[in-house]
Amino acid sequence: MRQMDVEARRRAAATIRERFLEIVEQMRRGEKPVLVMPKRTLSNTIYDVRRRMLLLGPDKIKRSFLDLGEARRFMQTLLMASIIYEALVNDEYPTIRDLYYRGKHTLRGRENTWDTQRESDAAIRDVESYTGLLREEMLILSKEKGKVVGRMRIRSGGDVIDLSRMGHGAYSIEPTPDQIEFLDIDAEYVLVIEKDAVFQQLHRIKFWDKHKALLITSAGQPDRATRRFVRRLSDELGLPVYILTDSDPYGFYIYSVFKIGSVTLSYESERLATPDAKFIGVMPSDIFGDEVLEKYADAFAKLLGKRGLRKILTGKKPVLSAGERRNYIIRAKPSDVMRAIELVGVDTYAPFRKYVESKLRVGGKELRELRRKEHAGYDWFKTPEWIREIGIFFATLSKLEIEALTSRGLRFLAHKYIPEKIETGDWIE
Amino acid sequence: MRQMDVEARRRAAATIRERFLEIVEQMRRGEKPVLVMPKRTLSNTIYDVRRRMLLLGPDKIKRSFLDLGEARRFMQTLLMASIIYEALVNDEYPTIRDLYYRGKHTLRGRENTWDTQRESDAAIRDVESYTGLLREEMLILSKEKGKVVGRMRIRSGGDVIDLSRMGHGAYSIEPTPDQIEFLDIDAEYVLVIEKDAVFQQLHRIKFWDKHKALLITSAGQPDRATRRFVRRLSDELGLPVYILTDSDPYGFYIYSVFKIGSVTLSYESERLATPDAKFIGVMPSDIFGDEVLEKYADAFAKLLGKRGLRKILTGKKPVLSAGERRNYIIRAKPSDVMRAIELVGVDTYAPFRKYVESKLRVGGKELRELRRKEHAGYDWFKTPEWIREIGIFFATLSKLEIEALTSRGLRFLAHKYIPEKIETGDWIE
Repeated sequence: MRQMDVEARRRAAATIRERFLEIVEQMRRGEKPVLVMPKRTLSNTIYDVRRRMLLLGPDKIKRSFLDLGEARRFMQTLLMASIIYEALVNDEYPTIRDLYYRGKHTLRGRENTWDTQRESDAAIRDVESYTGLLREEMLILSKEKGKVVGRMRIRSGGDVIDLSRMGHGAYSIEPTPDQIEFLDIDAEYVLVIEKDAVFQQLHRIKFWDKHKALLITSAGQPDRATRRFVRRLSDELGLPVYILTDSDPYGFYIYSVFKIGSVTLSYESERLATPDAKFIGVMPSDIFGDEVLEKYADAFAKLLGKRGLRKILTGKKPVLSAGERRNYIIRAKPSDVMRAIELVGVDTYAPFRKYVESKLRVGGKELRELRRKEHAGYDWFKTPEWIREIGIFFATLSKLEIEALTSRGLRFLAHKYIPEKIETGDWIE
Repeated sequence: MRQMDVEARRRAAATIRERFLEIVEQMRRGEKPVLVMPKRTLSNTIYDVRRRMLLLGPDKIKRSFLDLGEARRFMQTLLMASIIYEALVNDEYPTIRDLYYRGKHTLRGRENTWDTQRESDAAIRDVESYTGLLREEMLILSKEKGKVVGRMRIRSGGDVIDLSRMGHGAYSIEPTPDQIEFLDIDAEYVLVIEKDAVFQQLHRIKFWDKHKALLITSAGQPDRATRRFVRRLSDELGLPVYILTDSDPYGFYIYSVFKIGSVTLSYESERLATPDAKFIGVMPSDIFGDEVLEKYADAFAKLLGKRGLRKILTGKKPVLSAGERRNYIIRAKPSDVMRAIELVGVDTYAPFRKYVESKLRVGGKELRELRRKEHAGYDWFKTPEWIREIGIFFATLSKLEIEALTSRGLRFLAHKYIPEKIETGDWIE
């Protein structure tokens, strides 16, 4: 048993004990037992402009044991807390899946404690937000996809690991990244890549060595450990973090999860989000330069004003020729458009709507739904730069994968595209 | 540029050159250009009983440039070979996705070289089977999910990596595992785990240290690099390989891919399959012991004879109590049953059919399809032991995840279930 885990167990168990003793106290005093915790709904999710991350607002919920409608959730939360507590004091390392199994049983032969992992996961989130402990701090493990290589040494679980000596393989980030100790670092920035295969390519030519970078892949939608690891690199070492994804609304959203947090799980953002993360590409404006902005000047002027339009002109030359574009661009699907509308809101979509709907059958029902909710988009996507990028997406219905850039030679991506964007500051905050 | 890659490039480029020079020679001799290569169809896929793996049979196909129906595929194969050759001599590390992009263009403004990655991937397979080079040998990279920790040191890309000093993280296996050099090893066996989260749990308690094991996860369906890495550990170091998956037809199939190869890509098996791999669990007979065999004695006797039935009795006590089973078992879906029928064939399914169909709506059309093709199942699943296990599955329609075992304490899985199965030889070859 390593010392760090022993201490983590002691801390987490003490916190759980202390917080749930309050319930016992309530009962002792003859009060009805009530759990008070932050309300984890979209309406209580607030984008904190100053801290630039999604946080829970001030609303609380009370969950009472004696209320018929709440008794089940109350019971589930307490059951989960006790299972996690047991696991902590018994030196266990449960996963969220096995917490589901540990708690699953039938009460008095009639009702199940929970029926699906959805319910047990919600109970874990209850315990997290009631105690203020992240599940990683309670030594709950999970599968991990994130990898890292670069000029840095770390200490984890008593071992010193040199991330520049991983051969052609990589270091797979641990499930409890708060326990990692940063020993010494000789890197100037962090490059996070959505695609594992592109990570492999850049690693193989030792991009990180030549450009003094830490190279990370999230292998798609990032898991919590990867997000926490990136956040710590930004916070504690002050390294700039650049994020490279496919040029499509799904990729833009991955960037947003790194930077701001997940819209549905905002209580974790405080420790998982990296507000300083920068999106370096692939940008729609990399593909098209100013061409589309000029062609759709009216639409963009409507959104940003004439002066605003002039400000978002990039002066960039497209990185792809017209012929390459013809071969490499993937046509957007209605689901991509819907996702883009979610990011920037229906108002930003409006000037492009006619064009888009003449080209694609954008889901009528879902779109009505977005309008009905007056889906205004996310504040952090309503900057002139993002309106430019997503506007170009609407106007061209074009997506591009990072791999389309490597197809013209890995050197182009590694030694021109990425370094030039970083050098000239061609990113979006 | 590392020496190993330089040599790999030289070798692969020379082979491609030599093989495709034959086409040029044909033309010089005034013959019509023809590619002759092994036929990669199911009908030409043979289970080699002696070598215990799927191999391509003796059938060849001829692909002629002057045949209208074949000209497109001929062109695609040659185009792909030339792109790969270019990449080799230009020190590139393409991925299969960017090979798709590299080759994608429109011929004479009318026909595309290929429309989907499906077609370009088929062309890569053509080049692989025509030249006898695996894509890894041509330095084509891909995303990788496999991880390893344990008492072993390896050399990769010039670095020496100690797989027992990975902290709480792990070593992510490289895309070209043939370049790994095994330096020294102090492990007695290899344990491959389907689920990454369970791998994390066993790693965290240093299972590999106490039990002198190499711990590997495929994180689901294994990729080629993980399969090749496991094969090399078996072949070159003579280590026994045990495979632990969920107890369901999908898990059994993962085992089969490690051991025998992929049914649709049998030409790779020769280098990727591990014929000595053993399935240690989770077995349906671990969950139910002999209870089901006795209850369905008639059905099993019909399949194996009375003496056969006696032989497959295990004498095992179920690892789960009746109460635990009630809580942990997941009910099979029709798609699970279909997959199981694919493994053992319609004949083995027959005695259980009435029961299964009374409980589940097993897909009528698909089932008719399997019958029409007289789907006989795979030879390597038609052993008494597999008929026992999959028979129990049919008779109980029960699936179990590995996590259901860890829910009764990680120690049970780590220090009892796995070591006892290995010690008593309770596995299936």
